[in-house]
Amino acid sequence: MTRQEVRSVVLAKLLGPTQPGDTVWDIGAGLGTVSVEIAVLRPHLEVVAVEQAPARLAFLRENRQRFGAYNIRVVEGTASEVLQAEAQRPRLVFVGGSGGRLPEILTAVTDRLEEGGRLVASFVTLEHLALTLQHLRQAQWPVEVAEIQVARSDVIAGLTGLKPQRGVFLVRADRPGSPAAPQIPDEGERVQA
Amino acid sequence: MTRQEVRSVVLAKLLGPTQPGDTVWDIGAGLGTVSVEIAVLRPHLEVVAVEQAPARLAFLRENRQRFGAYNIRVVEGTASEVLQAEAQRPRLVFVGGSGGRLPEILTAVTDRLEEGGRLVASFVTLEHLALTLQHLRQAQWPVEVAEIQVARSDVIAGLTGLKPQRGVFLVRADRPGSPAAPQIPDEGERVQA
Amino acid sequence: MTRQEVRSVVLAKLLGPTQPGDTVWDIGAGLGTVSVEIAVLRPHLEVVAVEQAPARLAFLRENRQRFGAYNIRVVEGTASEVLQAEAQRPRLVFVGGSGGRLPEILTAVTDRLEEGGRLVASFVTLEHLALTLQHLRQAQWPVEVAEIQVARSDVIAGLTGLKPQRGVFLVRADRPGSPAAPQIPDEGERVQA
Amino acid sequence: MTRQEVRSVVLAKLLGPTQPGDTVWDIGAGLGTVSVEIAVLRPHLEVVAVEQAPARLAFLRENRQRFGAYNIRVVEGTASEVLQAEAQRPRLVFVGGSGGRLPEILTAVTDRLEEGGRLVASFVTLEHLALTLQHLRQAQWPVEVAEIQVARSDVIAGLTGLKPQRGVFLVRADRPGSPAAPQIPDEGERVQA
Repeated sequence: MTRQEVRSVVLAKLLGPTQPGDTVWDIGAGLGTVSVEIAVLRPHLEVVAVEQAPARLAFLRENRQRFGAYNIRVVEGTASEVLQAEAQRPRLVFVGGSGGRLPEILTAVTDRLEEGGRLVASFVTLEHLALTLQHLRQAQWPVEVAEIQVARSDVIAGLTGLKPQRGVFLVRADRPGSPAAPQIPDEGERVQA
Repeated sequence: MTRQEVRSVVLAKLLGPTQPGDTVWDIGAGLGTVSVEIAVLRPHLEVVAVEQAPARLAFLRENRQRFGAYNIRVVEGTASEVLQAEAQRPRLVFVGGSGGRLPEILTAVTDRLEEGGRLVASFVTLEHLALTLQHLRQAQWPVEVAEIQVARSDVIAGLTGLKPQRGVFLVRADRPGSPAAPQIPDEGERVQA
Repeated sequence: MTRQEVRSVVLAKLLGPTQPGDTVWDIGAGLGTVSVEIAVLRPHLEVVAVEQAPARLAFLRENRQRFGAYNIRVVEGTASEVLQAEAQRPRLVFVGGSGGRLPEILTAVTDRLEEGGRLVASFVTLEHLALTLQHLRQAQWPVEVAEIQVARSDVIAGLTGLKPQRGVFLVRADRPGSPAAPQIPDEGERVQA
Repeated sequence: MTRQEVRSVVLAKLLGPTQPGDTVWDIGAGLGTVSVEIAVLRPHLEVVAVEQAPARLAFLRENRQRFGAYNIRVVEGTASEVLQAEAQRPRLVFVGGSGGRLPEILTAVTDRLEEGGRLVASFVTLEHLALTLQHLRQAQWPVEVAEIQVARSDVIAGLTGLKPQRGVFLVRADRPGSPAAPQIPDEGERVQA
């Protein structure tokens, strides 16, 4: 499950000030934590949540219902099946889980992502991080990595400790080429003195 | 300047799914990075940016203009002056900078924040963190601390290094008591499996 | 328990190239992890391990035996009792645990530490860290803080994850004044290009 | 340059309670920070510092002199040349720098390290970390990774900030097989309650 702090960084990296009608793909959506967050905070977007594991799909659908996140479209299947089948090429893709099929997912995304589109992916293992960097380097997409570490307070003998959560590596890559849609500004760089 | 990653965590901690017309106070707004982020991402909110340093006020106003963030109201003065003068008690307060007046700001906030309202504050020094925890403990407000550390990729001999940014401590406290407005749900805990 | 990585940093901060016959105090020695490490790696030193909790004392004595660390002298009691009773003022003190008596320990150490002597203390709570910084600032001892965070690899679905350990704050302070013994060089600064 | 805190963790990972006469190899010794630390703290060991860059060799020799670390043998050349030429196979190897020849160094080390011997290597880039993990996995050596992050206090407006140093990934691997010399105990696991 993607935790609050990391989830909000994912959103900031993935989304510029999006347009009504934009679509965001959440590949390996799991329980839907990221999908629901995007859907609720940006009600004018469509979120396509792709998941193949039946158990997680059930939770995903339940969470969609529970938070009234009806702008989520839940799609069952693997990334490559789903992305190939889709008429419209995606512009904004988040990969949060790979279910052991990372190479296939990366191939599907580098195949189908629109020119000027953006991929954000989160990793907790060194091998998946390395594989992705290598794949994107071969595709010659400019890449930024961020390592995010969060510790939250807990109570130690009545005092305030800091309990660390597992760190997350976030990879962001923009596909080169002129976009059909307007380019995605980086929220992070919006304000400069 | 508050960086992208930290800024997005601040927003997630401060704001639940806010209502149109809600007001957010940004005390010690500095260049306005947090104010602009809130104002642009949540156009239905009013942001009151309080700053006393003339040089920063100029940048703040420029950034408001530049990003069309007209839902920011820039107020010149110290937190205590401004919060006392304001007819309506604040419900959502972010303290990002203290200009050496932290005790005074904390007093003003614990005086004026609405029952059920929320304070989020960010710190880069151990003394300010400690002072705030002590103040809020005396006020008996429940407190959560998070330490956020981010490293962003840079290039080392053609390879990918991770350059650390200064870590930030975020303090979040909710004033006890029944709120006039509906209580602020915690975005972070919204989705559970 | 102090983990390997942190323990070795503690040693580096506490000990310069010590002289045969030097004595190191380990206040709140707990199970003796730090005492044993010093005693084994520096067999020419005497380590005085002070602990008051009977259960921990038993482990401490067992570990002393088990690792043949006979240059550890185990002393039962509180820091202030023990340090007052000792004829010779300490020159090298490590505080790893406080058993709820931190103010008393700090008073005993600032009372008794030799001029030019060194204190290293480790903390996992913000309050103890803040209290110590305040105490040492009042004593006007120069202070250095280091925050150490370590994650060790674990296995996630056959791949390499990084499981974070709780971070530790290390405080190091040197008592001003001309030392009887030669001053403690900082291992960290020994080599410069 | 390897900083104090990281250097002490390297030593703890590399060295168990070594025997007089043991030899430690420091491949890509750079300015000699790790070599000098080992040589001074463990005067009964021989340290072989391998470096190929003439400018760094000069510093290395100077540091050897300056700290009286005469148990350092400075060897000019690449790891593979030097390790092949050496009659005795190494038992303890530290790789701190690769000068762009990491694959070659790894091949030399996996070729020549004694059965039961230990390799510790430090990295600041994701690619070198990944390459090493892959190489050692193919060699079927058990591997442990640790990520070490240190922030040291600095002064911000008269208060105590925490300035982060670049994080370091440490890889430790033990070559399987029965050692000629007694096996290297892990300092980290020596004390357990």
